[in-house]
Amino acid sequence: MPKTSFQAPVSQVAQAIEPFRVMKILGEAKALEAQGKDIIHMEIGEPDFPSLDCVHQAAYDAMQQGLTHYTPTLGLPVLRQKLAKFYECFYRAQVDSERIIITPGSSSALQLVLTAILNPGDRVLMSDPAYPCNRQFVNLLYGKLVNVPVDHHSNYQLTLEKLQQHWQEGIKLVMVASPANPTGTVIEQSELLAMAQFLAEKNAYLLVDEIYQGLVYDRPAESILAHDNLPENVIVINSFSKFFGMTGWRLGWCVAPKSLMPILDRLGQNLFLAAPTPAQYGALRVLDDDALEQLEQRRHIFEQRRNVLFNAMQQAGFKLKTLPQGAFYLYWDVSEWTEDSEAFAAELLQQTGVALTPGTDFGNYQAKQHLRLAYTTDEAQLLKAVEKIASFIQTR
Amino acid sequence: MPKTSFQAPVSQVAQAIEPFRVMKILGEAKALEAQGKDIIHMEIGEPDFPSLDCVHQAAYDAMQQGLTHYTPTLGLPVLRQKLAKFYECFYRAQVDSERIIITPGSSSALQLVLTAILNPGDRVLMSDPAYPCNRQFVNLLYGKLVNVPVDHHSNYQLTLEKLQQHWQEGIKLVMVASPANPTGTVIEQSELLAMAQFLAEKNAYLLVDEIYQGLVYDRPAESILAHDNLPENVIVINSFSKFFGMTGWRLGWCVAPKSLMPILDRLGQNLFLAAPTPAQYGALRVLDDDALEQLEQRRHIFEQRRNVLFNAMQQAGFKLKTLPQGAFYLYWDVSEWTEDSEAFAAELLQQTGVALTPGTDFGNYQAKQHLRLAYTTDEAQLLKAVEKIASFIQTR
Repeated sequence: MPKTSFQAPVSQVAQAIEPFRVMKILGEAKALEAQGKDIIHMEIGEPDFPSLDCVHQAAYDAMQQGLTHYTPTLGLPVLRQKLAKFYECFYRAQVDSERIIITPGSSSALQLVLTAILNPGDRVLMSDPAYPCNRQFVNLLYGKLVNVPVDHHSNYQLTLEKLQQHWQEGIKLVMVASPANPTGTVIEQSELLAMAQFLAEKNAYLLVDEIYQGLVYDRPAESILAHDNLPENVIVINSFSKFFGMTGWRLGWCVAPKSLMPILDRLGQNLFLAAPTPAQYGALRVLDDDALEQLEQRRHIFEQRRNVLFNAMQQAGFKLKTLPQGAFYLYWDVSEWTEDSEAFAAELLQQTGVALTPGTDFGNYQAKQHLRLAYTTDEAQLLKAVEKIASFIQTR
Repeated sequence: MPKTSFQAPVSQVAQAIEPFRVMKILGEAKALEAQGKDIIHMEIGEPDFPSLDCVHQAAYDAMQQGLTHYTPTLGLPVLRQKLAKFYECFYRAQVDSERIIITPGSSSALQLVLTAILNPGDRVLMSDPAYPCNRQFVNLLYGKLVNVPVDHHSNYQLTLEKLQQHWQEGIKLVMVASPANPTGTVIEQSELLAMAQFLAEKNAYLLVDEIYQGLVYDRPAESILAHDNLPENVIVINSFSKFFGMTGWRLGWCVAPKSLMPILDRLGQNLFLAAPTPAQYGALRVLDDDALEQLEQRRHIFEQRRNVLFNAMQQAGFKLKTLPQGAFYLYWDVSEWTEDSEAFAAELLQQTGVALTPGTDFGNYQAKQHLRLAYTTDEAQLLKAVEKIASFIQTR
């Protein structure tokens, strides 16, 4: 290319977007791997299992039948109906299929919902720590963040009390996740319902991220949609990535109040047109009983891993303040050894090959004192990781 | 749900988004079909062919190998490299694979680029008519539109002269498409290059939508990327949907200046995380020579259809002002019979079963005097459609 006077203009919102620290860790881990070093990957929020064979077969069959065209923007009607049935059978939730929109991953669902709701300057309240994209979506829409610090005293979650304490004019939306990333903790349904009712009176939405729904331990999986007396301000986001093991397929969904559906449809026509068709046919199959049974076995494996990792950490003297009941994460307070979780994670990786994610990916509050451990690798690796972490800390 | 005082707040930008008229026509056409009426679908901008068998096989093989996880946000490195090779072999364009980002459809690519560039109030210049989403993306980002009316005198395209005439301060980006939707017309490369150079001096980007690249008739397919002396302000959007026949797979790409790539990567991490993995493995296969040969045969079929439809229209007395050289559309001036293309299209559908898209989907300028005909159905249907249109007009 010739040199011109052209200076590439970049928008301020784009410039302000921070990269995920986990991508840096992942890049460094892969570089070490390329040098022949053994790496234990506990940084990535992705199940290590591939998607189910029956999903592959169903997607392929659909392709071979010529079903490779665009679906409607709201998704295949048959998939929306099957999801409604799924809610009924597994969560005793009555969800009208007309309230479901299938999206290309839950990233798109989040973006869709926030775009449908937020005017510039509108406020969005969420916990700190929280899933990092949530903040970025608010920034991209010129919304304002109300970050509410949470710690182990509230199980790293928002509560009705915290909502009331931090309430301010202009909040249009509150975002919660249960089970949550990065902490793996769950919000009790009674608390969620109370929050929804409080917000309905304030004319604000409650967005419940149920992306890790199904990956719950010691207790039944639940959905806020199961409440009969749920106010109309509740929006649920979900995904085929985590429990259903279909990360690379990029398929999620959103359950929204009926009044929002025409807006979501029109926005979706523009933003993504339709979710991937092969993924939608795969997802139809993953909701069948035999597939769900296989996923239940995987859930059981995650539960065992959680127990193994949690116990090994405790035995190594790393007291975790909560036993998370969902997702596949432990959130670990490392303030005893460092005030800089990023440097700690980088050093740990270099010296031991154990890759963890610094808390700074998830917010500011005590972020430099926390690390996220993902148990997305097998038990033997998890045990080896704890040993390596222990000897790393001893030699500091 | 119980009645609460909750009034669902909706953002102003979302409220302002107009639905695609083509979706209304499609809905009405499907309702008529359900009543047993024969419909000739010439409204949808989607090839009637399914994707290639070899694509299905490649996607399935990848799944069965367990390749169902997230790819990097920029896309599979091997796919980005193969696209770079493709540019070299077929367009004699030297494109560094590091400048390519794979996106979930070109919708995402457009959104990504506009988000990376536009601050609120920045202006974007485009032709009227143009692809409708372009306008919506600008509105969603609080940009300002500079719509430049174009007609058959400039082959329904922007020119350097028009750019100069309509130039104003604050334009950050000019969007063109070649071949274009809804008109099927092509911009000469010399004109494109002159526009790029003019814009580089103004410190503005030129976004060239090459989504219909490959679907070009009477002349070789071209890419602006083939120019050796291309200024650095050129961004190209492309897709596996049209020429490659992979609509439902939702896969596109963008070639951007190297300086933008870290920004696009970070934005993509948030907006979509990664393009669908099965689609990326399918796309790897569709770039092989034997697959491209099959696609070339399909291109030939589109060319024949264009000739058949164009000639039949001329013979029926419907003089088309340009013979489009690409895509799969004719843009037809119906001002002799109506000043309301929407009502005309609705009536035509009701009376004859021929579904066309009103020009109002693509802008304002002479939009009520134009209809878009898509030759995405076979020759016999196209001939039948022209007959029906002719008798419809005679009886008016």
